[in-house]
Amino acid sequence: MAVSLKPLDDRVVVSPLDAEEMTAGGIVLPDSAKEKPQRGKVVAVGPGKLLESGERCPVALVVGDEVLFGKYGGTEIEVDGEEIKILRESDILAKIV
Amino acid sequence: MAVSLKPLDDRVVVSPLDAEEMTAGGIVLPDSAKEKPQRGKVVAVGPGKLLESGERCPVALVVGDEVLFGKYGGTEIEVDGEEIKILRESDILAKIV
Amino acid sequence: MAVSLKPLDDRVVVSPLDAEEMTAGGIVLPDSAKEKPQRGKVVAVGPGKLLESGERCPVALVVGDEVLFGKYGGTEIEVDGEEIKILRESDILAKIV
Amino acid sequence: MAVSLKPLDDRVVVSPLDAEEMTAGGIVLPDSAKEKPQRGKVVAVGPGKLLESGERCPVALVVGDEVLFGKYGGTEIEVDGEEIKILRESDILAKIV
Amino acid sequence: MAVSLKPLDDRVVVSPLDAEEMTAGGIVLPDSAKEKPQRGKVVAVGPGKLLESGERCPVALVVGDEVLFGKYGGTEIEVDGEEIKILRESDILAKIV
Amino acid sequence: MAVSLKPLDDRVVVSPLDAEEMTAGGIVLPDSAKEKPQRGKVVAVGPGKLLESGERCPVALVVGDEVLFGKYGGTEIEVDGEEIKILRESDILAKIV
Amino acid sequence: MAVSLKPLDDRVVVSPLDAEEMTAGGIVLPDSAKEKPQRGKVVAVGPGKLLESGERCPVALVVGDEVLFGKYGGTEIEVDGEEIKILRESDILAKIV
Repeated sequence: MAVSLKPLDDRVVVSPLDAEEMTAGGIVLPDSAKEKPQRGKVVAVGPGKLLESGERCPVALVVGDEVLFGKYGGTEIEVDGEEIKILRESDILAKIV
Repeated sequence: MAVSLKPLDDRVVVSPLDAEEMTAGGIVLPDSAKEKPQRGKVVAVGPGKLLESGERCPVALVVGDEVLFGKYGGTEIEVDGEEIKILRESDILAKIV
Repeated sequence: MAVSLKPLDDRVVVSPLDAEEMTAGGIVLPDSAKEKPQRGKVVAVGPGKLLESGERCPVALVVGDEVLFGKYGGTEIEVDGEEIKILRESDILAKIV
Repeated sequence: MAVSLKPLDDRVVVSPLDAEEMTAGGIVLPDSAKEKPQRGKVVAVGPGKLLESGERCPVALVVGDEVLFGKYGGTEIEVDGEEIKILRESDILAKIV
Repeated sequence: MAVSLKPLDDRVVVSPLDAEEMTAGGIVLPDSAKEKPQRGKVVAVGPGKLLESGERCPVALVVGDEVLFGKYGGTEIEVDGEEIKILRESDILAKIV
Repeated sequence: MAVSLKPLDDRVVVSPLDAEEMTAGGIVLPDSAKEKPQRGKVVAVGPGKLLESGERCPVALVVGDEVLFGKYGGTEIEVDGEEIKILRESDILAKIV
Repeated sequence: MAVSLKPLDDRVVVSPLDAEEMTAGGIVLPDSAKEKPQRGKVVAVGPGKLLESGERCPVALVVGDEVLFGKYGGTEIEVDGEEIKILRESDILAKIV
């Protein structure tokens, strides 16, 4: 990206992978699912959630991680022609390993 | 699973057992129940809930545990043809022992 | 029970007593009551509510205690032909002594 | 009471006094009041509200205290033919002295 | 008062002053106001709000203080023919000095 | 003011400035704005918000400060013929310097 | 600005950039996006969020930072003919670097 984003707080910037890539990896989202999660790649992570002590709890993800996240959470934005999503760490369901 | 999931926070990945297996184990869900819980096997656990101290409280379950959980909680996803569920620890009602 | 339940967090498993047993013990639930509590016997208790310190506050009940609880709280389930209820400690109104 | 109740947490068991008794004590509830409080006598008190430290804050009432409480709070139950109410300490407005 | 009230927690018992008295003191409530506050005299104060440390924060008012409070907050009650109000300290807007 | 107000908690008493004064100071409120803030002068401040430690965090404003605040927050009251507003510190958007 | 604003708490004053400037920087907001974020320049920052310890956590932004923020959050105001926005730090999604 020519323009890069540095998320605040416990936010994570994710580049979504499309459905074909997801099927290839063995993950299929059933039509009957209440909320279909999406798969994506982490492109930026914030400094983490602020604790009452004034310290921050680091986000448990690093750039490059593949993650599952809820389809309807977060904010979509297009950067340099690529659609990305800005989510809170708590909207990330799991890391794919 | 060829693709494995590492849940975040206090999330747990559960592989649901079908109704026949549940009846065999002596547990029957009455039709009149407000919310019918499901039985499943834990396949992955997250690092646990974040405390204000910055530490995490480990999830009180290990891979292989059989659990009861609410039918409508969590997120369904299909991995390698098997339908699984990603739940928070607080959505797990009890361990079956 | 052939199958036994080990509740998580501050949950309690209760085996409800039927109306006749309640009347015998001197407790009658008025028809005009907004929410009719039920009487039951505790059959399993969880490790207790998680405190911010990371410790748990033990549930103030032991197996065998008779309790009053709200009729509409918790989750009903049938184990080995017996209908039981899984409740949080905070849904238990009082111990009968 | 042949059957006695030991309330959990910060709950209080109150035996309501009827309207005549209330008038005698000089307290009249206006018809225009949004919520008419009731007068009653405390018959049992719980161990008190759980603090994050794991200790409990003792209930600021003792058995025998006369109290004012909201009419619509708590749970009604009949014990040995006497109608009582199980309330949280926070539903008690004031002690009558 | 022949019957006196000792409020619990951070509650305050207030004896409302009527509209004429309020005008005399230079305070007029505009008809257009969203919520018209009332003026009253404090007749009793509780021990104060419970902190997580188990201590209480004393109510910042003493008996005899004149206060402004929201018209629709708290509970009305008639004691010895005088209408009073039981409010939480947080429902008191300001002390009149 | 002949009658003066001493606000409780983190409340602030503000004397609103009218629209003409606001325009003079270079601040214009667009008609399209979702919520039009108002400009006013602080005439009294409370002791500040209560912290769990039992101490109070002093209000970050002093008498005489000019502030912007939401039009629909707080409570309006007329004192000695002057309309004022009682707001919480958190309803104050910014100090004008 | 002839009139300058000093925001309270964790508030941030942002001067929005218009759509053309945003496209130039490589960021395009898709029409299908649920909530279109806006790009702007930080012109003032508050002292930061109050922690229970009584200290404040400094805002993770400085004057001059370019940020993305939700279109519908915060309060719009016109200062010296320029439309600005007053937002909480938690309404800022990311810093553009």
